[in-house]
Amino acid sequence: MSENFTFNLLARDGAARRGEITMPRGTVRTPAFMPVGTAGTVKAMYLDQVRELGSDIILGNTYHLMLRPGAERMARLGGLHEFARWPHPILTDSGGFQVMSLADLRKITEKGVTFRSHVDGQVFEMSPERSIEIQGLLDSDIQMQLDECIALPAERSEIERAMELSLRWAERCKTAFGDQPGKAMFGIVQGGDDVKLRERSAQALKALDLKGYAVGGLAVGEPQDVMFEMLEATCPQLPEEKPRYLMGVGTPDDILGAVARGIDMFDCVMPTRAGRHGLAYTRHGKINLKNARHAEDPRPLDEESNCPASRDYSRAYLHHLVRSNEALGGMLLTWNNLAYYQSLMADIRSAIEQGRFTERAAEIRAAWARGDIPPR
Amino acid sequence: MSENFTFNLLARDGAARRGEITMPRGTVRTPAFMPVGTAGTVKAMYLDQVRELGSDIILGNTYHLMLRPGAERMARLGGLHEFARWPHPILTDSGGFQVMSLADLRKITEKGVTFRSHVDGQVFEMSPERSIEIQGLLDSDIQMQLDECIALPAERSEIERAMELSLRWAERCKTAFGDQPGKAMFGIVQGGDDVKLRERSAQALKALDLKGYAVGGLAVGEPQDVMFEMLEATCPQLPEEKPRYLMGVGTPDDILGAVARGIDMFDCVMPTRAGRHGLAYTRHGKINLKNARHAEDPRPLDEESNCPASRDYSRAYLHHLVRSNEALGGMLLTWNNLAYYQSLMADIRSAIEQGRFTERAAEIRAAWARGDIPPR
Repeated sequence: MSENFTFNLLARDGAARRGEITMPRGTVRTPAFMPVGTAGTVKAMYLDQVRELGSDIILGNTYHLMLRPGAERMARLGGLHEFARWPHPILTDSGGFQVMSLADLRKITEKGVTFRSHVDGQVFEMSPERSIEIQGLLDSDIQMQLDECIALPAERSEIERAMELSLRWAERCKTAFGDQPGKAMFGIVQGGDDVKLRERSAQALKALDLKGYAVGGLAVGEPQDVMFEMLEATCPQLPEEKPRYLMGVGTPDDILGAVARGIDMFDCVMPTRAGRHGLAYTRHGKINLKNARHAEDPRPLDEESNCPASRDYSRAYLHHLVRSNEALGGMLLTWNNLAYYQSLMADIRSAIEQGRFTERAAEIRAAWARGDIPPR
Repeated sequence: MSENFTFNLLARDGAARRGEITMPRGTVRTPAFMPVGTAGTVKAMYLDQVRELGSDIILGNTYHLMLRPGAERMARLGGLHEFARWPHPILTDSGGFQVMSLADLRKITEKGVTFRSHVDGQVFEMSPERSIEIQGLLDSDIQMQLDECIALPAERSEIERAMELSLRWAERCKTAFGDQPGKAMFGIVQGGDDVKLRERSAQALKALDLKGYAVGGLAVGEPQDVMFEMLEATCPQLPEEKPRYLMGVGTPDDILGAVARGIDMFDCVMPTRAGRHGLAYTRHGKINLKNARHAEDPRPLDEESNCPASRDYSRAYLHHLVRSNEALGGMLLTWNNLAYYQSLMADIRSAIEQGRFTERAAEIRAAWARGDIPPR
């Protein structure tokens, strides 16, 4: 534990980094995967389970929480940690990304963004300052600057305009955040799929001397090789001694590729969302439990897993639950998927410590490529 | 444990009975509440949790399981206990009640019932013999005769016809079940809201010397006092030394009243269904978590409960989850509700042992009548 927010690099292996973020509420081992707890709950999981899987930090969505239960109400209830019974670190996004994807009547100006709630139609104004204020009311440990994230493909001029606006908002967020030793505000690199814009954004943010840096605006429709190219342009521009967070990414394969390029933190709805749709992530690759091949298969998803959901329930039972739209299907598959993601992160951290990350990543990919165990 | 199916009466208090059913898979303490595991899952619960709450037995619905995953498939997978990971006793209904309420194109003849699956439209024929065969394929410990259960109010002639048919089916089910020392087949008393028909049905079933007796066709629309009147007519006609099961009942108050009239076993979807609809059963009565009074209440549902769902989560958080339609809301409230039901049953059993059931039932009802804790 630490009174201050600090990041220590413990090991390097090529561009891959093994580190530790310490803050008053706990230590985050990096590379880290942050399960998404959109509305104060990681869907279909008890947070005790999420913790037991090795999650050091979860993500909360500012947009959802500001609408319901509301930021001021959350503060009166003691903040998000108390509310959701998660005493460990929490990172919150700025709300901007979800305003763009979920809210109605969005309008962006220099001042901020105006939108209408998708829940009850109420109109909200969110400036960079208000985003930081809300994240403070939630008592978030790692807060994100408000930015403008645009879908790809897009015109270069439009990408540049949004990137420059995001830089000006980063400065305003830094000022609004002020001096909070135990917490951090991260800037967000934008610039779409343009290497030069990514470099300019990263350099300008570096000059702001923030406590951490995110790479935003990726995994928004571009091919994986474009995402990796952007990381190769961006990461070398960022300070070595600060954590780097790739927002909203990704598949297990995306994570291996991004760690190899110097990323320390990830969040993604894939393991939780896929779990609610009958899909299981395993060391054998992605398995669709709806498939009839599982209907009479008494074997578990992965007999070598430590997770009860992966090890103790038959594929036949999981298939039945998914086909019958039973809540337990989503509960078990989400549990399996988060267990797999966290075991992958532990595997990655261990491989970096041992200086064999490249080799281990190849082994993991080879196991995925071999595919699922043959049907019985 | 026992190689045979046996019932022992341990204590009596007025008409209320404290007993124990023993069978190879375990002992059921009565009066017992059986959580409903419709399709091989008690909705939104891990069965480990259901067990930890003190559930000695759960109920499976033959209609749902014969359609999906199918009886023969279930047998190939080792039966329902193995499939759902519940090694303890299971009672299955005959399927008849749900054929009547869920299936299409139902047709009842002396031979049995023909219906069309609500899942895929497939046509099934279910005779008394096939119902017992299916329950055997599921490997059910307590199997129910096929009966015809009709909604009330109904014409006396119609009630009598269905009751007489059910008696003939009871004989056929007894023959089909044969001699299975570790298992039981229960007959079902029918007769609607007619005391004379109930008495005739009970006497005829008693003459069949079955291992247990259910009271069916109640909680189908009639007032509570009619249900109690039917129990008063029926229970004295049933043999003292056999367990008595009131099917599909009920509210906590129904259970107190039925225990007072000599019932030993209950099942009901109320605690699980209500949990998925934002309703909590507590010793303070029924609480609607959707209500705005809970929105900023940091107190748990019941700080004195041993159940984490009841004791550790704030009403504000539960309110938020229910309002946001989050899966965790249903998970926590179902957990709370089953915990409350099982704690009520433990309370009832203890009070009968101590010879103070009437007094304890009055105390429990008085606490419900006082209602929820005042808003803060």
